[in-house]
Amino acid sequence: MTSHKATIAVIGGTGALGQGLARRLAAAGHPLIIGSRTVEKAREAAVRIPAPAGCERPRGATNADAAGAAQIVLVTVPWGSQAGILDEIRPHVAGKLVIDTTVPLVPPKVARAQLPPEGSAALVAQKRLGEGVRVVSAFHNVAAHKLQKDEPIDCDILVFGDDPQDRETAIRVVAAAGLRGIHAGPLANSAAAEALTSVLIGINRNYKADGAGIRITGIATS
Amino acid sequence: MTSHKATIAVIGGTGALGQGLARRLAAAGHPLIIGSRTVEKAREAAVRIPAPAGCERPRGATNADAAGAAQIVLVTVPWGSQAGILDEIRPHVAGKLVIDTTVPLVPPKVARAQLPPEGSAALVAQKRLGEGVRVVSAFHNVAAHKLQKDEPIDCDILVFGDDPQDRETAIRVVAAAGLRGIHAGPLANSAAAEALTSVLIGINRNYKADGAGIRITGIATS
Repeated sequence: MTSHKATIAVIGGTGALGQGLARRLAAAGHPLIIGSRTVEKAREAAVRIPAPAGCERPRGATNADAAGAAQIVLVTVPWGSQAGILDEIRPHVAGKLVIDTTVPLVPPKVARAQLPPEGSAALVAQKRLGEGVRVVSAFHNVAAHKLQKDEPIDCDILVFGDDPQDRETAIRVVAAAGLRGIHAGPLANSAAAEALTSVLIGINRNYKADGAGIRITGIATS
Repeated sequence: MTSHKATIAVIGGTGALGQGLARRLAAAGHPLIIGSRTVEKAREAAVRIPAPAGCERPRGATNADAAGAAQIVLVTVPWGSQAGILDEIRPHVAGKLVIDTTVPLVPPKVARAQLPPEGSAALVAQKRLGEGVRVVSAFHNVAAHKLQKDEPIDCDILVFGDDPQDRETAIRVVAAAGLRGIHAGPLANSAAAEALTSVLIGINRNYKADGAGIRITGIATS
């Protein structure tokens, strides 16, 4: 370890959300491993991410290798790929914190909430990875393209998980990405944020906005 | 008609949410009928609601009579009572706009999202009332006790409905109650706001807040 900060794997790190989060977490000094289906694509994505002076550069790896080498595993993949990619990383995440960001969008009607029979993509992830893996969910409602810029983002991040300590760890990752994370209850509550993404997509269309978000009002956070 | 404003029935108008909305809608000059299981209880609730000078006073009626006499029907009842009360008003709401506020909270775990198999309480309401009734849903995330005061409330109201015109009408009712209503897509999307209420209940506990709410950021509304 060349850093006291947790090494984070960004699974699906070649996508817009993964790239945006990777940029911000690298800037905050987290050692990063970008995961993708192939090492080549992962490396191409990794070299595009700047690292602060004195910090190790992000590197690329297969999703499985990235998950295996990291302490915290951030899953940023589309709903249609979630099951397959979780199967790839499952052998490598026992006991680790997995932050799932999957929103169950079903094209073409992505502005219509279509939650899975299990209740939420987060519950699907927990079921697929098994009880030995500490799953939390977060980052459902932030526009990926806003993460790619250095500007402040007017959006809170609801963090769901059955273990408050795991939520707290995830909230620190959220803070490293420059956002306010909020304890939003058990994994079952992830349905709220996942469905809200469809609401926000519709709001972007209706109000000609380029990245509506949410804020929780009436609370004091440090 | 002594007013150009729509007459609104507040079904379940003796509860905290109903009373809060009734106060604000009466203050905005809407003729109001407070509905309850019994006329006596409805009348007791109605006399507690002030009306502006020159406006007719809110009156009380059974839920069925209130729904029958109104142009817009606002349903503010607990999840456990929703089915029975919708059955009471069904014969009286054909072709009318029904604004359902039901949140499917299942005690004792009200801070855990427990959406019904139908997807949302709003979809349950539409199914129960039948296709001839124009159902929208709203007011899921605002703290009832804040509606009882005259102070501004830092919370947006997500409005769901399959017909944009019906949503627009509901948004005008929201504005009359002193809040910003937002087009949040089809009735299926109501799952987002309904689940979010459990999230907010948990946030109130976690952060010792007395009425957390939500704001949609990044949009311009008139």
